[in-house]
Amino acid sequence: MTGRIKEETTGITHLGNQGTKYQMDYNPSVLETFVNKHQENDYFVKFNCPEFTSLCPITGQPDFASIAISYVPNVRMVESKSLKLYLFSFRNHGDFHEDCINIIMKDLIALMEPKYIEVWGRFTPRGGISIDPYCNYGQAATKWEEIAFKRLAYHDLNTNKTDII
Amino acid sequence: MTGRIKEETTGITHLGNQGTKYQMDYNPSVLETFVNKHQENDYFVKFNCPEFTSLCPITGQPDFASIAISYVPNVRMVESKSLKLYLFSFRNHGDFHEDCINIIMKDLIALMEPKYIEVWGRFTPRGGISIDPYCNYGQAATKWEEIAFKRLAYHDLNTNKTDII
Amino acid sequence: MTGRIKEETTGITHLGNQGTKYQMDYNPSVLETFVNKHQENDYFVKFNCPEFTSLCPITGQPDFASIAISYVPNVRMVESKSLKLYLFSFRNHGDFHEDCINIIMKDLIALMEPKYIEVWGRFTPRGGISIDPYCNYGQAATKWEEIAFKRLAYHDLNTNKTDII
Amino acid sequence: MTGRIKEETTGITHLGNQGTKYQMDYNPSVLETFVNKHQENDYFVKFNCPEFTSLCPITGQPDFASIAISYVPNVRMVESKSLKLYLFSFRNHGDFHEDCINIIMKDLIALMEPKYIEVWGRFTPRGGISIDPYCNYGQAATKWEEIAFKRLAYHDLNTNKTDII
Amino acid sequence: MTGRIKEETTGITHLGNQGTKYQMDYNPSVLETFVNKHQENDYFVKFNCPEFTSLCPITGQPDFASIAISYVPNVRMVESKSLKLYLFSFRNHGDFHEDCINIIMKDLIALMEPKYIEVWGRFTPRGGISIDPYCNYGQAATKWEEIAFKRLAYHDLNTNKTDII
Amino acid sequence: MTGRIKEETTGITHLGNQGTKYQMDYNPSVLETFVNKHQENDYFVKFNCPEFTSLCPITGQPDFASIAISYVPNVRMVESKSLKLYLFSFRNHGDFHEDCINIIMKDLIALMEPKYIEVWGRFTPRGGISIDPYCNYGQAATKWEEIAFKRLAYHDLNTNKTDII
Amino acid sequence: MTGRIKEETTGITHLGNQGTKYQMDYNPSVLETFVNKHQENDYFVKFNCPEFTSLCPITGQPDFASIAISYVPNVRMVESKSLKLYLFSFRNHGDFHEDCINIIMKDLIALMEPKYIEVWGRFTPRGGISIDPYCNYGQAATKWEEIAFKRLAYHDLNTNKTDII
Amino acid sequence: MTGRIKEETTGITHLGNQGTKYQMDYNPSVLETFVNKHQENDYFVKFNCPEFTSLCPITGQPDFASIAISYVPNVRMVESKSLKLYLFSFRNHGDFHEDCINIIMKDLIALMEPKYIEVWGRFTPRGGISIDPYCNYGQAATKWEEIAFKRLAYHDLNTNKTDII
Amino acid sequence: MTGRIKEETTGITHLGNQGTKYQMDYNPSVLETFVNKHQENDYFVKFNCPEFTSLCPITGQPDFASIAISYVPNVRMVESKSLKLYLFSFRNHGDFHEDCINIIMKDLIALMEPKYIEVWGRFTPRGGISIDPYCNYGQAATKWEEIAFKRLAYHDLNTNKTDII
Amino acid sequence: MTGRIKEETTGITHLGNQGTKYQMDYNPSVLETFVNKHQENDYFVKFNCPEFTSLCPITGQPDFASIAISYVPNVRMVESKSLKLYLFSFRNHGDFHEDCINIIMKDLIALMEPKYIEVWGRFTPRGGISIDPYCNYGQAATKWEEIAFKRLAYHDLNTNKTDII
Ligand SMILES: [Ca+2]
Ligand SMILES: [Ca+2]
Ligand SMILES: [Ca+2]
Ligand SMILES: [Ca+2]
Ligand SMILES: [Ca+2]
Ligand SMILES: [Ca+2]
Ligand SMILES: [Ca+2]
Ligand SMILES: [Ca+2]
Ligand SMILES: [Ca+2]
Ligand SMILES: [Ca+2]
Ligand SMILES: [Ca+2]
Ligand SMILES: [Ca+2]
Ligand SMILES: [Ca+2]
Ligand SMILES: [Ca+2]
Ligand SMILES: [Ca+2]
Ligand SMILES: [Ca+2]
Repeated sequence: MTGRIKEETTGITHLGNQGTKYQMDYNPSVLETFVNKHQENDYFVKFNCPEFTSLCPITGQPDFASIAISYVPNVRMVESKSLKLYLFSFRNHGDFHEDCINIIMKDLIALMEPKYIEVWGRFTPRGGISIDPYCNYGQAATKWEEIAFKRLAYHDLNTNKTDII
Repeated sequence: MTGRIKEETTGITHLGNQGTKYQMDYNPSVLETFVNKHQENDYFVKFNCPEFTSLCPITGQPDFASIAISYVPNVRMVESKSLKLYLFSFRNHGDFHEDCINIIMKDLIALMEPKYIEVWGRFTPRGGISIDPYCNYGQAATKWEEIAFKRLAYHDLNTNKTDII
Repeated sequence: MTGRIKEETTGITHLGNQGTKYQMDYNPSVLETFVNKHQENDYFVKFNCPEFTSLCPITGQPDFASIAISYVPNVRMVESKSLKLYLFSFRNHGDFHEDCINIIMKDLIALMEPKYIEVWGRFTPRGGISIDPYCNYGQAATKWEEIAFKRLAYHDLNTNKTDII
Repeated sequence: MTGRIKEETTGITHLGNQGTKYQMDYNPSVLETFVNKHQENDYFVKFNCPEFTSLCPITGQPDFASIAISYVPNVRMVESKSLKLYLFSFRNHGDFHEDCINIIMKDLIALMEPKYIEVWGRFTPRGGISIDPYCNYGQAATKWEEIAFKRLAYHDLNTNKTDII
Repeated sequence: MTGRIKEETTGITHLGNQGTKYQMDYNPSVLETFVNKHQENDYFVKFNCPEFTSLCPITGQPDFASIAISYVPNVRMVESKSLKLYLFSFRNHGDFHEDCINIIMKDLIALMEPKYIEVWGRFTPRGGISIDPYCNYGQAATKWEEIAFKRLAYHDLNTNKTDII
Repeated sequence: MTGRIKEETTGITHLGNQGTKYQMDYNPSVLETFVNKHQENDYFVKFNCPEFTSLCPITGQPDFASIAISYVPNVRMVESKSLKLYLFSFRNHGDFHEDCINIIMKDLIALMEPKYIEVWGRFTPRGGISIDPYCNYGQAATKWEEIAFKRLAYHDLNTNKTDII
Repeated sequence: MTGRIKEETTGITHLGNQGTKYQMDYNPSVLETFVNKHQENDYFVKFNCPEFTSLCPITGQPDFASIAISYVPNVRMVESKSLKLYLFSFRNHGDFHEDCINIIMKDLIALMEPKYIEVWGRFTPRGGISIDPYCNYGQAATKWEEIAFKRLAYHDLNTNKTDII
Repeated sequence: MTGRIKEETTGITHLGNQGTKYQMDYNPSVLETFVNKHQENDYFVKFNCPEFTSLCPITGQPDFASIAISYVPNVRMVESKSLKLYLFSFRNHGDFHEDCINIIMKDLIALMEPKYIEVWGRFTPRGGISIDPYCNYGQAATKWEEIAFKRLAYHDLNTNKTDII
Repeated sequence: MTGRIKEETTGITHLGNQGTKYQMDYNPSVLETFVNKHQENDYFVKFNCPEFTSLCPITGQPDFASIAISYVPNVRMVESKSLKLYLFSFRNHGDFHEDCINIIMKDLIALMEPKYIEVWGRFTPRGGISIDPYCNYGQAATKWEEIAFKRLAYHDLNTNKTDII
Repeated sequence: MTGRIKEETTGITHLGNQGTKYQMDYNPSVLETFVNKHQENDYFVKFNCPEFTSLCPITGQPDFASIAISYVPNVRMVESKSLKLYLFSFRNHGDFHEDCINIIMKDLIALMEPKYIEVWGRFTPRGGISIDPYCNYGQAATKWEEIAFKRLAYHDLNTNKTDII
């Protein structure tokens, strides 16, 4: 075994690139992929993204969230630096919390056609209330379609946030 | 994609409104909704509301709780600032803990007709004992009716509060 | 809606009563109930009781525990101040940890005939070992009988206490 | 030794009183004291009061805080149930965070003439920022005057709140 | 109800005994039992034992672990002080971590013939790696045989230790 | 070196004694001491006593606290099992929190004549407020007199309890 | 006492204002003040600001930090909503971490002429290292000048961050 | 019972060996096994390995992770010191996070032919995002094949990392 | 710079030695030292030793503690593996907690003649009480003599253990 | 104010550079600096570096540590990416823990001539013991020389690590 070689990273242009341009407007075209070398067995990959920020579409006030993205790869896998650039592109974009989370999932489905994916956002409180949207998806006509519903059905079971401060 | 536009926020009067009037008496009519733009897939939205306070119906003593509300939207979704005003309207209202939690759930069912909803309150201790009521609901004749029972059946499994101090 | 009125609290004598007499001997007769106003839907009520103390039946040494009681109400619900007085009545009573927890559950079943109930005690360590008994019950010939067994079967799954200090 | 006898609790009218009336408007006259039986040595008494709520004087929105009060008693000591009633009397009163904390300290100085006192509030966040005011006082021309300044000078040294969520 | 009486503690010789002799060599014969007074309903009893120490069979170096033992009693129940003496008897005994945990379970099965039992050890790290063995058992030809396999199948699901320091 | 021998434990009657009688009424005479073998250098000994319980002198309601006792030994040192029996003797005794802590300190000063001692109690909340008294003492005309005042002056600097639940 | 009246909030234009315009470029002129009603005694006010974000001046990559600001007011006090708008104005501004923290302190000194102020930033890690700058200031020729140096000298004493993950 | 004897540790050459040579290049041949003495019952063994480090195949930058390995032994079991040497051999090896975790699992399957195995890595963040890959395996045509899929299907359910700092 | 060379580790016989013999009786002669290469500046070295166990001299029951040792080196420094062997030699030795901690400090003073040293033990609870002894030392007629007294005077300031469970 | 301009970042070659070469041998020459723009007031900058790894000079085994570096800048300040490269250069270098920490401090003093600096390492445990060295420095003949001694004298006061697991 010698590790992933150059030919196996074709199409990756952001990682290790000095001239990275940070997107300031919503831009899904910045996303890039590489090939899954372990397609014979299903497995999970999770991204923890605690530095998400967008704008409120009505007041213009900045919002902040921590977003977790988990998926079971199919043939293509999203490269993490391109994912970072994509998430940063929401920085000056206005939308509701519930909409942002659904949009992120749909863009990643279009990009990778994963077997399974879920996106969970935990936004910071405003006026004493915080909002945590969660959506998921399993490829139709596969066992992951049923798993997606089960994971939704048992989502956040027994987690009760209680601190005021 | 350009984010939620003005036409998609029709009916929202509290968010971004300078003249907000804080309700001091129980008032479910303050609740407002907006349309769900992702009705093709089921997903969860959770509100963490740690600043709930009401009065004891017998002694008049103020009670405090942290309330978590999770639901799967149908066509309409509750707007978060109106939810805050609604919860604040319990401030000078007297009722038992178990009753408050059931009432909140019933008001939100009437408002949104969600596919699924659950409400969990964790009240502060009085005399060395604290009370945590939990209720939930799934739309009849849908798969969410069964999920509601399963989530109730496995509610708070294995969570044991142990601190005296 | 106006909150729970006087007629709906009939039978409650301890709550808000100045002349409360703290029981110093095991006394289940101190328990009181009120009527469940939400019988049309099943829900959970949990009591967190971290101030339990009894005596060792062999050495006479005081024992301390935190006890969690969760139940699904039927027609009658236990009033929390009377529950506090009942638990305090173990203060000078001697019994094994495992026995105390079973007795508490049986007394509450006799009082309320709940659909489901569970009692979990976490006692403080003696000589480097601590004991946590857990028992539960579901009304025979209802779906809660099966749920009781499932909750027992998955009790405390994957919780490993490890601190020496 | 037989514990504090009846004559030593003269002037305490709220503790153990069934007819407690919860104040809904700012009312320092509800405060009561009892005599300090250990005046020969200085010591600290701390009250942890996590259930404080008031109103914003400009928007009317409810605010929540946890307040810590520590003092070194002189001849009279504040009774804790009367302190609770006093703090509850801010429930429908509007004032800035910084003002509430200073007012509480001044009322307790007037009541008890303590050797030393400090009041620290930690309010819940609004719009992504939270405010924690802290004030203190030492009796003039005693060593506690200097200690008060030293405790102020080293207040909250090295405590940095960092969580966004 | 009067608590467990003398006749119900027959066979308990260590608890409350001044002349306890601490075993320094592996000795399962020190284990003692008492009768289960609640055989009509199944329930769990858990022992948290954070003070376990044994020796490495190859290097002779002392090992340390926290051990959790949970079981569903049948007719006899293990007395906790005798369990402490038994666990202390591993103090100067050499064996692999995986072997110790299996031996403890087998000794307790032979002693009590419980309906179900599980033993989980968490050993302290050596050279940057720590080992946590877990074994369990359900009485053959009872529903606990199937539960034992399910608890094994879902053992330690989603618990990932991550701290380097 | 061979460890503390029999002659060095003269006067210890409770430790290792099968016939321990647990005191149910306040009784400082149960305290015992042994000789300090390291009098040539000052050092601290701290007792963590989280199982303290007493009664409210006005309502009779049980109170619970965790008490920390730290001292610098002089010639005699308090034996820990006798300290446990002494603290248990408050079990059915009624007094204010502030009084209990001062009494414990005074009894230990009379017993050991320590160079320095401090006693800190943290009581469980009642009605949303908890009380933590702290007192200390340094032998007059020694450097510990000044240290006692300094430790009082900097007591509990910057510790703010904030959780509502 | 009636709380802060209208005349005492002169000059506050952002708080409670529906038309708030969120600044997207560095803009200290947005800051507003109100008068200190407790000038006779020194006290601390702390702002916890966990939602700070700026840009790297060399790579353009977004940076995130939690910033704590503590000060002792003189005659004028900064209004919290205007402070929020000011901090949000760094959103698309590029500067080093160490520079941002110094600039924030200087702007607030110019605005309020406080007796004392300190600003502490904790930035998120980049490439396995995170940076936490801290600066402070005490008014020259007052006792706060010396306190400022002492707080700097003892800054972050004994706090060692150790988590890799 | 006398503990594992010499004949039962045949093939272990690294444990207790003074001349251990630390591998600096990927080398699975360093792995060693010993026989499972409890083959009659299935059980879990978990290794917590928080000191994993490798190199990025594109930038050459060192990466760090905590890796958890859990398996159900068949006939042979991996010896922990040889596992440590194997994991250390990734120190100067370059590969993607997702590849490392799959390779470790495959090497251990080839070594031990376990009934079940899972490998979970939690890598440190780079540029505000961290990656956690997880893969597992159950022996074909045994009940562990189905369990492997179920554990994958419920992997990391409801664990949302949210801290930015 | 090339790291510590062979000549600089003279006298170290346990580290990296395959034939380590674990001491089972108190034996300070096992301690070894190496030379301090940075004598021109004073600095601290701390050992965290959470695996300490000894026997009670009266009952023979095993005791467990976590011990922290901090010192400022002079010419010689204690080698960590020899320190481990020394601490393990208390395994079957009987002594009071307070005595063990003083003996460890005295043995290390005799070995290294450090400028400063402190030893702090936190023992596990017995019968609801735990004991934490702490002693320290500074070389006579140096500034460390005064520092030793100051560190003793401020030892464990404001740390109150409160958990019952 | 416009942020740090290009001329103010002269000499920074690693930050934002695509061709970064990761050092695999100890190499202090990789360190780079930039000018301090706030020399008129003293302030602290802290680097949290949890990804440090080196080799044991005797056994060759990899060691891991989290290192905290705090300093008060003079004219030049260390650039964080060059600091990362410098710390990574210890990856295949063998030295004692105590030596590494002193060497890092000396190299940074030579580079920046800071007014004050301190370096604290917390290494992972080996054989049940972990080592935390701490050294510091203040510029001779300035007030920081005295502060350095005071911070050393009060280093790690009252922090006792206690976890076995
Ligand atoms: Ca909190
Ligand atoms: Ca928080
Ligand atoms: Ca606890
Ligand atoms: Ca607690
Ligand atoms: Ca603990
Ligand atoms: Ca948080
Ligand atoms: Ca950690
Ligand atoms: Ca740890
Ligand atoms: Ca709490
Ligand atoms: Ca809490
Ligand atoms: Ca962590
Ligand atoms: Ca962290
Ligand atoms: Ca955090
Ligand atoms: Ca604990
Ligand atoms: Ca611990
Ligand atoms: Ca731990």
